[in-house]
Amino acid sequence: MADTTPLILITNDDGYAAKGINTLIEVAREMGDVIVMAPEVNASAKSHSLTTAMPLRARQMWSAGRQQRDGRLLNTVTVYACNGTPTDCVKLGAEHFTPRRPDLVLSGINHGSNASINVIYSGTIGAALEAVTNGYAAIGFSLLDHHADADFTPCLPYVRQLVQYVLANGLPDRVGLNVNFPRATHAPYKGVKVCRSAQASWTDSFERRDDPHGQPYWWLTGTFVCNDNVPDTDQWALEHDYVSVVPLRPDYTDHQAINLLKPLEQ
Amino acid sequence: MADTTPLILITNDDGYAAKGINTLIEVAREMGDVIVMAPEVNASAKSHSLTTAMPLRARQMWSAGRQQRDGRLLNTVTVYACNGTPTDCVKLGAEHFTPRRPDLVLSGINHGSNASINVIYSGTIGAALEAVTNGYAAIGFSLLDHHADADFTPCLPYVRQLVQYVLANGLPDRVGLNVNFPRATHAPYKGVKVCRSAQASWTDSFERRDDPHGQPYWWLTGTFVCNDNVPDTDQWALEHDYVSVVPLRPDYTDHQAINLLKPLEQ
Repeated sequence: MADTTPLILITNDDGYAAKGINTLIEVAREMGDVIVMAPEVNASAKSHSLTTAMPLRARQMWSAGRQQRDGRLLNTVTVYACNGTPTDCVKLGAEHFTPRRPDLVLSGINHGSNASINVIYSGTIGAALEAVTNGYAAIGFSLLDHHADADFTPCLPYVRQLVQYVLANGLPDRVGLNVNFPRATHAPYKGVKVCRSAQASWTDSFERRDDPHGQPYWWLTGTFVCNDNVPDTDQWALEHDYVSVVPLRPDYTDHQAINLLKPLEQ
Repeated sequence: MADTTPLILITNDDGYAAKGINTLIEVAREMGDVIVMAPEVNASAKSHSLTTAMPLRARQMWSAGRQQRDGRLLNTVTVYACNGTPTDCVKLGAEHFTPRRPDLVLSGINHGSNASINVIYSGTIGAALEAVTNGYAAIGFSLLDHHADADFTPCLPYVRQLVQYVLANGLPDRVGLNVNFPRATHAPYKGVKVCRSAQASWTDSFERRDDPHGQPYWWLTGTFVCNDNVPDTDQWALEHDYVSVVPLRPDYTDHQAINLLKPLEQ
């Protein structure tokens, strides 16, 4: 008899040992067999970057068989740590470390917001979109709390619901989901809003300091500026204690601007 | 009297010493004063990644004043090398190394294609889109030839035309241009096509090898698979010897999918 247990590949950008990914593993194990391929160290803000100048390694960190816990079935899990980026992890994991094509790719739960313009910098979302370009259903999860010991408890029923929905229904072709949760102090959440990414930017990006030799260096800091937190955006949803779900497509083309720029063909 | 010479910030992902960026500097100097902030070493495939765990440094590598050459005015140029990513370079350059807000940000000319799905991995395009998120007009240029000594000659009149167009007309709000050139052996080019990014992916991504101790490692390789090279795409334009121009917006939202996924709000 064929094994019909769903196969779920998980990665993140905070590293395999982070609380967020271990939270996600525990929820995903209720619904399928889990393979984890995640960065061995923090790889935040790696966006969609690839490792081209050195080879990748993967080490098995731990694994567990099927078991019952609290009346729930927990399926198998095998965790690998990789020296590459989150995007590398998805490619390597899906091609060489899964017994068959995964049914779903999950990324997160990230410690910190990936709403609005953060999408384009995020390793968590880079990984989810890499899965999408390769034809997988994929979800990136993030909590608006960057602390190492952040409280993910209020996320759990929503993660469960969204994973079940996507396993049952799939997603539109070449679309992935970007899911963000308000921090736990704002729970209980009011529900889910399906919305668009708010337009925003990071400004005043650096703090200049001088080293002990009088030479300058610059630390990345930055201020998040969003003048677009209207009700159809993720930023608005999060500020009003909703879980935001934004469908993402790995294509930056501005189709309306194509016609505006046709004069360039002359 | 105010200086009305345009101010142009230039970066790339191949590093400040690459032939492509030096070609771009020479063309841009005909039209404005140029500040270059580019990676000190190769930073290809860095996408939109940011450097968060260490500070940035910038070293001035060379500069030149206004001069005439071949009857053309060449404006000032100052070149800095930075230890950060292309995205870092745009942020640091625009905020701390330009005398005023740049009129235009250019990235490239990249050695190698940034058409189709390559957009999402590219440091060249990551830099151009970083400029767009901060409200600058921006263009990324790439040649479909990754050799260090690639021939950029046939690109020059098109680079000149596109820079002049954008300096004179600007671009639609929050839109940047992704310009790709067929390799020089396909010149003279047939003209410009304004088009969309072709849907594609990279598959079979790794070559597995064993190290001298019998331990496995994986090198990124990959095969470009595009089943979408129809006439409105950049891939089709390039395969038919046109220069491709794709308007890009730094927003992955799939607006059509929002309605399809509204059931998630129940």
